[in-house]
Amino acid sequence: MTVAHPNEASILSEREFPAPARGKNAATALSRILEPRSVAVIGASSNPDKRGYQIIKALKKAGYSYPIFPVNPRGGAILDLPVLGDIDALPEGVDIAIIVRPAEEVPAILIQCGNKGIAGAVVLAHGFRERGDKGSVAEERLREALVKSGVRILGPNTSGMLNCTVRADFIGLPELPPSGPVSALTQSGNMILSLVEDSRSFNGPGFDVIAGLGNQTDVGYGELIEELSLRKSTRSIAIYNEGFRNGRAFLDAAARVSQSCPIVMLRGGRSFEGQKAALSHTGSIAGADDVALKVLAQTGVTLIDCSDELLPVAALLASTPIPKPGTGIVVLTDGGGHATVAVDALSRAGVPFASLSEDTKAKLRSVVGEEASVENPIDVASAADAYPDVFPECIEILASDPQVGLVLTNGLFGAYHIRFDTSLLKAENSAAERIVAIQKTTGLPLVFHSCYANRKPENHDILRNGGIQVFPSIDWAATGSKALFERANWLSKQDRRDERPAGEAPRVEVPCGLSAESTARGILENLGVDTGQWSAVSDAESVETAVAKFAAACAVKVDSAAVVHKSDIGCVRLGVTREAACAAADDIGRAMATHAPQATAFGFIVTPMVKDGVELFVGATNDPVFGPVVLFGSGGVLVEAAGDVTFRAAPLSPADALDMINETRVAKILDGFRNYSKVDKRLLADFISMVSYAVMSMENLSELDINPIIANESGIYPVDVRLVGKQVNV
Amino acid sequence: MTVAHPNEASILSEREFPAPARGKNAATALSRILEPRSVAVIGASSNPDKRGYQIIKALKKAGYSYPIFPVNPRGGAILDLPVLGDIDALPEGVDIAIIVRPAEEVPAILIQCGNKGIAGAVVLAHGFRERGDKGSVAEERLREALVKSGVRILGPNTSGMLNCTVRADFIGLPELPPSGPVSALTQSGNMILSLVEDSRSFNGPGFDVIAGLGNQTDVGYGELIEELSLRKSTRSIAIYNEGFRNGRAFLDAAARVSQSCPIVMLRGGRSFEGQKAALSHTGSIAGADDVALKVLAQTGVTLIDCSDELLPVAALLASTPIPKPGTGIVVLTDGGGHATVAVDALSRAGVPFASLSEDTKAKLRSVVGEEASVENPIDVASAADAYPDVFPECIEILASDPQVGLVLTNGLFGAYHIRFDTSLLKAENSAAERIVAIQKTTGLPLVFHSCYANRKPENHDILRNGGIQVFPSIDWAATGSKALFERANWLSKQDRRDERPAGEAPRVEVPCGLSAESTARGILENLGVDTGQWSAVSDAESVETAVAKFAAACAVKVDSAAVVHKSDIGCVRLGVTREAACAAADDIGRAMATHAPQATAFGFIVTPMVKDGVELFVGATNDPVFGPVVLFGSGGVLVEAAGDVTFRAAPLSPADALDMINETRVAKILDGFRNYSKVDKRLLADFISMVSYAVMSMENLSELDINPIIANESGIYPVDVRLVGKQVNV
Repeated sequence: MTVAHPNEASILSEREFPAPARGKNAATALSRILEPRSVAVIGASSNPDKRGYQIIKALKKAGYSYPIFPVNPRGGAILDLPVLGDIDALPEGVDIAIIVRPAEEVPAILIQCGNKGIAGAVVLAHGFRERGDKGSVAEERLREALVKSGVRILGPNTSGMLNCTVRADFIGLPELPPSGPVSALTQSGNMILSLVEDSRSFNGPGFDVIAGLGNQTDVGYGELIEELSLRKSTRSIAIYNEGFRNGRAFLDAAARVSQSCPIVMLRGGRSFEGQKAALSHTGSIAGADDVALKVLAQTGVTLIDCSDELLPVAALLASTPIPKPGTGIVVLTDGGGHATVAVDALSRAGVPFASLSEDTKAKLRSVVGEEASVENPIDVASAADAYPDVFPECIEILASDPQVGLVLTNGLFGAYHIRFDTSLLKAENSAAERIVAIQKTTGLPLVFHSCYANRKPENHDILRNGGIQVFPSIDWAATGSKALFERANWLSKQDRRDERPAGEAPRVEVPCGLSAESTARGILENLGVDTGQWSAVSDAESVETAVAKFAAACAVKVDSAAVVHKSDIGCVRLGVTREAACAAADDIGRAMATHAPQATAFGFIVTPMVKDGVELFVGATNDPVFGPVVLFGSGGVLVEAAGDVTFRAAPLSPADALDMINETRVAKILDGFRNYSKVDKRLLADFISMVSYAVMSMENLSELDINPIIANESGIYPVDVRLVGKQVNV
Repeated sequence: MTVAHPNEASILSEREFPAPARGKNAATALSRILEPRSVAVIGASSNPDKRGYQIIKALKKAGYSYPIFPVNPRGGAILDLPVLGDIDALPEGVDIAIIVRPAEEVPAILIQCGNKGIAGAVVLAHGFRERGDKGSVAEERLREALVKSGVRILGPNTSGMLNCTVRADFIGLPELPPSGPVSALTQSGNMILSLVEDSRSFNGPGFDVIAGLGNQTDVGYGELIEELSLRKSTRSIAIYNEGFRNGRAFLDAAARVSQSCPIVMLRGGRSFEGQKAALSHTGSIAGADDVALKVLAQTGVTLIDCSDELLPVAALLASTPIPKPGTGIVVLTDGGGHATVAVDALSRAGVPFASLSEDTKAKLRSVVGEEASVENPIDVASAADAYPDVFPECIEILASDPQVGLVLTNGLFGAYHIRFDTSLLKAENSAAERIVAIQKTTGLPLVFHSCYANRKPENHDILRNGGIQVFPSIDWAATGSKALFERANWLSKQDRRDERPAGEAPRVEVPCGLSAESTARGILENLGVDTGQWSAVSDAESVETAVAKFAAACAVKVDSAAVVHKSDIGCVRLGVTREAACAAADDIGRAMATHAPQATAFGFIVTPMVKDGVELFVGATNDPVFGPVVLFGSGGVLVEAAGDVTFRAAPLSPADALDMINETRVAKILDGFRNYSKVDKRLLADFISMVSYAVMSMENLSELDINPIIANESGIYPVDVRLVGKQVNV
């Protein structure tokens, strides 16, 4: 089954087209595209059924106050605007051209636009690479025109762009949404409509820029988030993403942007990616969706599973302060059922709960009375029914407790005048104003759920206008609270980046295809990764010498680039003593002759036997989207069935590697479990970090499996190492 | 951290209070409570601030057309109704009494109600068992009054009840929701308000009965679902549940009710249950939430994770036909982005996709044109922009493809007149009418998502009135579609219940505390479970004889009720030959003397060594809520760390046990993996089924662990058996 995208192409694995050569004004071009102060419509039309008319109408309807230049050889006037006969007739230096002409005309138009100093263009036409081979010629000609013209483009095959701040609507909406702090990037026109409708439905805080990226033939996500983060009017970025042209460039940009501007992302096409890297052993564990989730989170991106939650969470991150590190959430409610549902949702999301000080509880008690509960969740029960100020009074008390990082108020908030008595309207409005003042004064983040939010009572808008989100959904509130705590946690770790010596990292070429294990170990050791005691020898006699030198029972294995699973064909002998060494080598030689007769030149790897311990997996893959990615998890033969693996983009610090270890189920065993001794996780984290730097130095890496690596109380022991270089010409 | 419920008590582990002795009218009493044709308000008041006034006002406002009898010693009139001075003054046989008097007066009132032939009562008062020790005396007196009076009650500590069909509002809502096919049971007044507001917000299909169960001191979930399922006006039951008084009784009722009436449940307090059974080894694996999810699903209950989705899914199940077994879903969209998000959500939910026949695709192509995609998802792209009938035309074609079990239409449906041209309004309404007719004629289930649903266009209400749900959320549509397919799947398995011989099952007493392994194996074998070859002997010499008899290397273990983990203290010897048998027994004796000196009388268990295979776990626990529950999963020492376990209420058929096996990760290995041979899963399923029947026959069971049980190509081999009976007086 496949998802077709006639309007917005999904590009998952291809690398970014080399950036066209441009002057130093590139950044400025992008800022002019996103906030254009003059617009040319190439292909303007006087026919109301045509896009070339609708765009002009939408701009005027939205109240766009800057010059609009319709261009059409027929001339005349459209909606009272004089039509220019061609692009040459435009004034010099228009900010943006909206090109509504078909695919085949676009390259020539771009060249003309470039000649007139136009910074950028929105290319709506489809019929490019999203059509596969049919569109590839058009795509190639478009690329050439980009290089020649120096014009930056959004698209092709995009639904367009909105800038609510300057009221520029290139999409043609029924009504322009209010301007506000959320910018959005999508690869779907329908998802733009969803965001706009969602905002309308929950009184969202409004939008700055919304852009459809289409095929990303030129401008991609990475550049756009950097540019958006420079805009004071953008306070968070919501993304609906169906793939990157250059995932690694996005990671780098996101790690920078996330420092100041939160990024929230819904990913599309997640369920198909697993099919991609299916051929390779590690690839099939890695299931690319899992990789994406981990490496994006690593750069501070908030990932969203449910499309409904994309905008609410982006709105929350745009408006709400960040909890202080080490704090927890308090749920403040007027009903036990809602509190229970909220606590369940928060707990499922992994949000930490605050425990309140005795002092705080005593103060709360004085406000809510003896009947109510002052544990977390705090249930004011009927105390608020006739006195809505119970909420600001409780929140004020909570704001002075250093354990409290965020207060989620849930239940009927703001609707007592609906539920009980209309005369409460004023008191509820004034309670809302008090609450806004508390968040402003104390910086304590506040989130609200009310089951009456869809009725949009005045007091909810007082909260929203004061930078406090009110959601009709407990789930949104929980996901949003989780995002705030995760962002706080991510920001608090940003000083941990470990700086490696500044000198140029060595570059090592990984041989094409499978390497012999000795080659693999040698490459790792050259790059500073200690793979333990081992000896590579060429004949049976040398095997005996090697075993004797280790003065211990040894594992003897074939050393050959021709054998993937050595033990499956009898090419591994365990517990080999000096006396048995020659016979073991001969056995292996015979097994090779039977099962891998083509491999005439092979040697042996000898390693001392390792004491029992936990079998782990450390690996790396060269992800087609994100580049070098490190894997860690449960190891052994059943590594795939265990499904206990996690990912990070390489390189990463030992501290980040420790976080990675602690994400897996096997981490519990490493802490000591039944007859398994405690393992030094820091040693393991150092090893993973070293591997992550090593793979950054590898040219042509396809995948690296160190499986199993045995961990016990004395150390960590890489038992088997498998390194594969990319196949050339495949 | 705890959640307090001043208004609605959470009851998780206590067993149902023995049913009060009543006449044969019990069922009738419940039907009279749920649809009362006369109401007495005990504690009526003329003070508008009092509940005793508000209830009468709410009944009149709602348009309740049956007699209302206010009762208050002061007499007079309330809202034009004459007030009776006491209960004796009531006519004989009023259906329901609403008791708004405080806790201490309730028992006497119930006795009086019983004397006047009142069928049931809603008891709003709190101050009973939800207050712990403080309320236990009041609770006890209440129970006595229930037995004496024969009156059935909802509550105490309930927010009340609604019957929208007869317009009886005992809660006092701002406005009564429309009557419709969904009934709801909750343990939270706030959740009732949420359901009513949710219904208002998405134009839900309306409610029949909504009841708050409160403390469930008398009427519980089991009885209520049975009664609701008898009502023609109830087509599905939505439940917000914080615990059962008798979980097993609910399972039995749910399995019956689910045959005809879908049950959808959101569970509250899920995140705390894990703390409960923490002491016991198996209990800590079982984490009671996992148990509840599995055993409830086993009875056909649809479980909901997100509170937002409770009502939408209940609405869908109330109105939509069930997909045919073996079919899949088709996504029909007007935008690639929405389709991608929907397919991701459906795939995450595990909904099967239909593959379309070539004939169907050709027919679709003739409707949507060459530009559109006729794979699944079908993307009509711009074909529908000016011609909404594209949707009914596509759906009609899909209805004739036997692979198609359900069509989810998503995108902008019904809002082309908003998005593009107001003149499309009529065409959209008529398209909706055509679609309603298709579902009615063909029985093909239809679900709709539209990002404009919150604008409530007319055509959406045409669909809804025709029994087709339209959701503003792709996630709701996905969860709802999943529920429909799961219900179809559950219903299709209902002929599989295997009938055991009718004779009375034997009852076996499990000894208190840990049993010696020979006792455990003996009990299982008496109940028909084959635990393989083993021999229990009393001294070293007999160990040798036993080993000799097996004519194979054996495992020799201590047989003692004093040792939980035999291998941890050196009381297991593996690969013991006849020659080494005596020495092995002596070693074990010494280990016992050192580590378990209190155990003076112990024997030995001898079993032939088992060939390598996959280590599995089969167990059972006596769940405090649901009674005997069977466990299956990955076994071995690391059973807890693997976290690969699933649950079913006992007993279960081999076919159901096979489903259970296939839910686990280890199932993949059982199919044959690398150097693990294929295992006969049916053999394993028979074993699990036999264990499930055996535990039903055990009196006093606490837990049973068969871990590991080794499965390989030759069979399944229970290696270690541990049986624990409940401690008395603990």
